[in-house]
Amino acid sequence: MLRTSFGLRIPEGMHDILPDEIALQDRAEAEILKLFKAWSYQKVGTPALEYGACLQPVEEEEDSFYKFFDRQGHVLVLRPELTTPIARMVSTRMRGEELPLRLCYAADVFRYTKSQRQEFRQAGVELIGSASAVADAEVVALAVEALCELGVKDFQINLGHMGIFTGLMDELGIPSEFRLKFQEALARKDFVRIERLVSESLLGSRVQEILLKLPRLHGGESMLDEVLEWSAKPSLLAAVEGLKQVYQCLEDFGGLDYVSLDLGILRGFSYYTGVIFEGYLPGIGFPIVEGGRYDSLYEDFGYPLPATGFAINLGALIGRLPKPKVQAADVLVFGEDISKVIEQTRMLRSEGKQVEMCLESITREAAEELAQRKGIKNLLGVK
Amino acid sequence: MLRTSFGLRIPEGMHDILPDEIALQDRAEAEILKLFKAWSYQKVGTPALEYGACLQPVEEEEDSFYKFFDRQGHVLVLRPELTTPIARMVSTRMRGEELPLRLCYAADVFRYTKSQRQEFRQAGVELIGSASAVADAEVVALAVEALCELGVKDFQINLGHMGIFTGLMDELGIPSEFRLKFQEALARKDFVRIERLVSESLLGSRVQEILLKLPRLHGGESMLDEVLEWSAKPSLLAAVEGLKQVYQCLEDFGGLDYVSLDLGILRGFSYYTGVIFEGYLPGIGFPIVEGGRYDSLYEDFGYPLPATGFAINLGALIGRLPKPKVQAADVLVFGEDISKVIEQTRMLRSEGKQVEMCLESITREAAEELAQRKGIKNLLGVK
Repeated sequence: MLRTSFGLRIPEGMHDILPDEIALQDRAEAEILKLFKAWSYQKVGTPALEYGACLQPVEEEEDSFYKFFDRQGHVLVLRPELTTPIARMVSTRMRGEELPLRLCYAADVFRYTKSQRQEFRQAGVELIGSASAVADAEVVALAVEALCELGVKDFQINLGHMGIFTGLMDELGIPSEFRLKFQEALARKDFVRIERLVSESLLGSRVQEILLKLPRLHGGESMLDEVLEWSAKPSLLAAVEGLKQVYQCLEDFGGLDYVSLDLGILRGFSYYTGVIFEGYLPGIGFPIVEGGRYDSLYEDFGYPLPATGFAINLGALIGRLPKPKVQAADVLVFGEDISKVIEQTRMLRSEGKQVEMCLESITREAAEELAQRKGIKNLLGVK
Repeated sequence: MLRTSFGLRIPEGMHDILPDEIALQDRAEAEILKLFKAWSYQKVGTPALEYGACLQPVEEEEDSFYKFFDRQGHVLVLRPELTTPIARMVSTRMRGEELPLRLCYAADVFRYTKSQRQEFRQAGVELIGSASAVADAEVVALAVEALCELGVKDFQINLGHMGIFTGLMDELGIPSEFRLKFQEALARKDFVRIERLVSESLLGSRVQEILLKLPRLHGGESMLDEVLEWSAKPSLLAAVEGLKQVYQCLEDFGGLDYVSLDLGILRGFSYYTGVIFEGYLPGIGFPIVEGGRYDSLYEDFGYPLPATGFAINLGALIGRLPKPKVQAADVLVFGEDISKVIEQTRMLRSEGKQVEMCLESITREAAEELAQRKGIKNLLGVK
């Protein structure tokens, strides 16, 4: 039945992937997965659909999930990320596996957002069962290596720690209402809003000074000393010390060239508890790498284990890699006798050639023109 | 927040894919896509979500689609197959490309059904812009070759033609109500129901005889002569002649060993118009290959082109392939000085080795035990 013009469209934020683009994405994905394997990560898969009760036990008013109901009325969600589904899977089906467990994936994820594609390819890792700073350094180093492997050179990884922000907020006695607004502005790096929030607040001048400095603390290890001058609270000290250890260990991994400390980063997903990091490329307004430590998520699934990991937004990277042309076939086979055309085609394919076969009899002239239009270098006319 | 027991479950029909299984599926998919490429098919991708107006312009009361509403109230469907989405894509974004166009894909599809997995991996091809019998033979031969390539040996391809069934029904003057019931029973190969339907009908004895024979017509070319005795209607003659040509051409492709003619097959999707085929494996109650000619679908998208193709249900095949163990890492590196452990690990990885690194200092004894449990053959203790 004839489609209406609406039936020719695709849902907002969705995309077809034409041959040139998917060739690029597949190659990037294969390279990344090969690297993950070399670092001893095993690939797993989770379903596209999860119960809302798994991803979001308490429903939020506003979120970026694609939600719907199954025929029994349960909330279903198209996976917005794989960290939580993998926690569910490990907690139910991989208990008793040797720890630490290194898992990886490449899958499409779905987020209802205006700022980027709503369905995009992610490749990522989870390192489960180790609370050590080496584990955090390993995943940051792996993210750096993955981006280098893809030939992306101008990226920047910002490394922070959830405990520094929450420790400071506690120490400075920031009221929770202000804290939420400040956190939101900080996550979006909205400096204008941060300045207005702080100046309109009734907080003391020293606290105001710290809050204005925090988003701009960016650089090397020495910056952490400044934070220690603000407070000697044990939880804050532990966070600073933890971040320092990861940073130092990253030097051994050779990943420091691309990494800066940044105390102003805050990750969107609520499960992060420790070291967090984001990767940016110039001209892309959202992180192309998201990662960090999440030490309470597995406990929520009844299998208390520390864990850390990251995901790379492959879909966003694709646009930044040089686009090679899709490879044309090696040979175009044509002729009047279709049986003989098929025979020759089969022979060439059995030799490993990529062969395009003419389905109908055409003249040599027409075949030559066709081969030229398709970029096929060799022509075989069968008599 | 702690998950309820419900939050630990996954939606009905969905599946996690553990390392052994996904390794197998990825390998099978890579082999099939390599073959498709050798036959000059270019890979494309379509979104997981399509508008209902694209997939199903007239809503049916019962279908197996995963449907929901977007925030504007439009019906969204998780793709149940890729033939229609690719027709939409070609009609809107690939007009003017050289014909015939050979496209392929590998993607997850979603169907609300009790008989099999509700999310499963499909790999398939579309050959667009040729009405020739050679085109049909090419895709059937490619399906045969793909299954052989995967090492599946005991499969069977049944080849039929939509025009024979509809031509006969017209010729025999079968009332449409009976026809629908008969068609449904025929599609499910429900011989008991077919016999009851026919014997309870008021149709003439010759017609009854034909209707009882039709589902059991299965075998080689000679069988088609019997059909020609029943009727000389031009549309039926054309269908029989078309099927014969494809069958003969398949001999040139060397695919006949696995192919039987079967006039009792009817494909579920309504877009098929000509030659149709299904692949079966013993012990699996649904087709593992579905394919055929669909010459009116592109017209529905405003770009009238003949087309033919097929899809292989990779998910169902996986269970039939021997399960190799996931490859263990080549080397386990451990030691007291983590900087040195990292240094050695980096060196080995740069030599192309798959290396697992101990994140914490352990004794040689413990490392030996760990390597044994993980099946890692080489151990490197760093001092």
